[in-house]
Amino acid sequence: MPISREVHLITRPHGMPQASEFEIVETNVPDAADGQVLVQNLYMSVDPAMRPRLTSGQALNEAMMGGALGRVVQSKSPDFAVGDLVNNRLGFREYFVSDAKGLSKLTPAEGLPLTVHMHALGMTGFTAYGGLLFIGAMKEGEQVFVSTAAGAVGSIAAQIAKIRGGYVVGSTGSDDKAAWLRDEIGLDAVINYKTQPIRQALEEATPKGLDVYFENVGGEHLEAALRRMNTLGRIAVCGMISGYNEGQAPVRNLSNIIYSRVMLRGFVGTDFMHLQPDFQRDMAAWLREGKIKYQETVMDGITSAPKALIGLLEGANSGKMLVKLAD
Amino acid sequence: MPISREVHLITRPHGMPQASEFEIVETNVPDAADGQVLVQNLYMSVDPAMRPRLTSGQALNEAMMGGALGRVVQSKSPDFAVGDLVNNRLGFREYFVSDAKGLSKLTPAEGLPLTVHMHALGMTGFTAYGGLLFIGAMKEGEQVFVSTAAGAVGSIAAQIAKIRGGYVVGSTGSDDKAAWLRDEIGLDAVINYKTQPIRQALEEATPKGLDVYFENVGGEHLEAALRRMNTLGRIAVCGMISGYNEGQAPVRNLSNIIYSRVMLRGFVGTDFMHLQPDFQRDMAAWLREGKIKYQETVMDGITSAPKALIGLLEGANSGKMLVKLAD
Repeated sequence: MPISREVHLITRPHGMPQASEFEIVETNVPDAADGQVLVQNLYMSVDPAMRPRLTSGQALNEAMMGGALGRVVQSKSPDFAVGDLVNNRLGFREYFVSDAKGLSKLTPAEGLPLTVHMHALGMTGFTAYGGLLFIGAMKEGEQVFVSTAAGAVGSIAAQIAKIRGGYVVGSTGSDDKAAWLRDEIGLDAVINYKTQPIRQALEEATPKGLDVYFENVGGEHLEAALRRMNTLGRIAVCGMISGYNEGQAPVRNLSNIIYSRVMLRGFVGTDFMHLQPDFQRDMAAWLREGKIKYQETVMDGITSAPKALIGLLEGANSGKMLVKLAD
Repeated sequence: MPISREVHLITRPHGMPQASEFEIVETNVPDAADGQVLVQNLYMSVDPAMRPRLTSGQALNEAMMGGALGRVVQSKSPDFAVGDLVNNRLGFREYFVSDAKGLSKLTPAEGLPLTVHMHALGMTGFTAYGGLLFIGAMKEGEQVFVSTAAGAVGSIAAQIAKIRGGYVVGSTGSDDKAAWLRDEIGLDAVINYKTQPIRQALEEATPKGLDVYFENVGGEHLEAALRRMNTLGRIAVCGMISGYNEGQAPVRNLSNIIYSRVMLRGFVGTDFMHLQPDFQRDMAAWLREGKIKYQETVMDGITSAPKALIGLLEGANSGKMLVKLAD
């Protein structure tokens, strides 16, 4: 019966969360009963999507929810053996007992760090892969635009588009990120939308128009892209950060899609689960060959979890933010 | 060598065209030379899309362009026989000689008036058929909304949706048209968008949400529909009459498509030409069985063509506007 430390939210934040709104609590975790497994979390994922749950959704004074990668340390389930790695939604704690229903077994990719399963080889990378190749139906050598191209999903989408022989334009919000996209990732053109007018910059960056737009922003980004879409172009809508509040970020030139016969399609990763085997094979190979680059920030120990979350929301991370809980 | 009368534009209109801006001119049409056919037009189509061409595109002092259905009266082409019916873009004239490149042969549907090939069994009906069933991928019994449902394309789309067992809501701009849609066409709900707020009216008319929106309007219509789309819904974008001028008719809630994973797709009829055999079979059967209703206004003789065009633009027609040129 291990002792587990877990992170509780004790007060709801207003604006930026404060360390004092969280508490680290020790708890005794029971042994696995029949049909159950006891899991030790190795890494937990810290994501921007957690912020709204702190305001509403996340219960106070209990272990917080969040993505994690753990290892089975006791099993009374026929489906899991001791040593199995499992993806779970019970992060922010060191150990938990589970009836195993919310767990999915992970076969670690050989020759790669385990953490890639938390981003490039996980749902983040899969969303980029399916969004670009299935929803966006990108073909070899096409003209591609990725917004927030230095972001978790965007940076993978942009690199897959390069691997597939595309001419790839990315937008981002800082000169540092723009330099990374240009110099490290090798995009064909990079737009800093905070210092360049997106409409004009995109026009100049896309002399052959656009076949695929991997959309994360909405509003002016989408208007600029709609002006550049080629006939039968595809817009894979992964997010519209500028338009999450209705009433903001109007789009005025949607009628452009008619004569160019453009498709826009909203999606989430579960829309193309049949691509998982292809994705695992392709992405593991690309990572091994160094064709997909990623950034991650790994903080150490459960006690650093609140700081990791606050740091993420303040932009202190480079790439994926993780907390390492155990070896 | 027949004498052909043809309609010339002699002065460009400002605002509503005037009869004095057109002239009926007699011309001698040569006999067909090798590889050519001589065609007598039987019916010509009068369409709203002609208006912008009068301002720009249509040459002055020559026969105007427009869709027509004609009959081959002389043939020196191996591809056509005397008596063949041909669709052509050389309306607004009684006869013409052609190298046959722009002609497509028409096999008239048995038991139906020839004029249905100019609307319900022609490109208008095909646009509705493919837009609803292929682009919109409407399945039996789904929830469907058609804007400008009393229009040429909309009225066919709405009726096909009914035939396919859908719950169908239509919008239109007058009480007369609303009554026709409700009483003659049998739609499940009809919205007069000039007297009812579209957002509230559509919400009340769609208790089960929307699976398919056949879009002809854009702007507030689209915003209202986006609020009602079910998961994996499809928006087939045939037109956006309210948004043809960039800067008008903004859409503010496009991000709705993400979590509902909705697709929008602009299209034209040539995007699904492989469906022509299915369309011809289905639509001819529906017309024979009286399942598809249509309205047409047929004026008589080439000299009435300017009046027919002006009448169309003034809304004097019910349904498709045609001019009959010969039996």
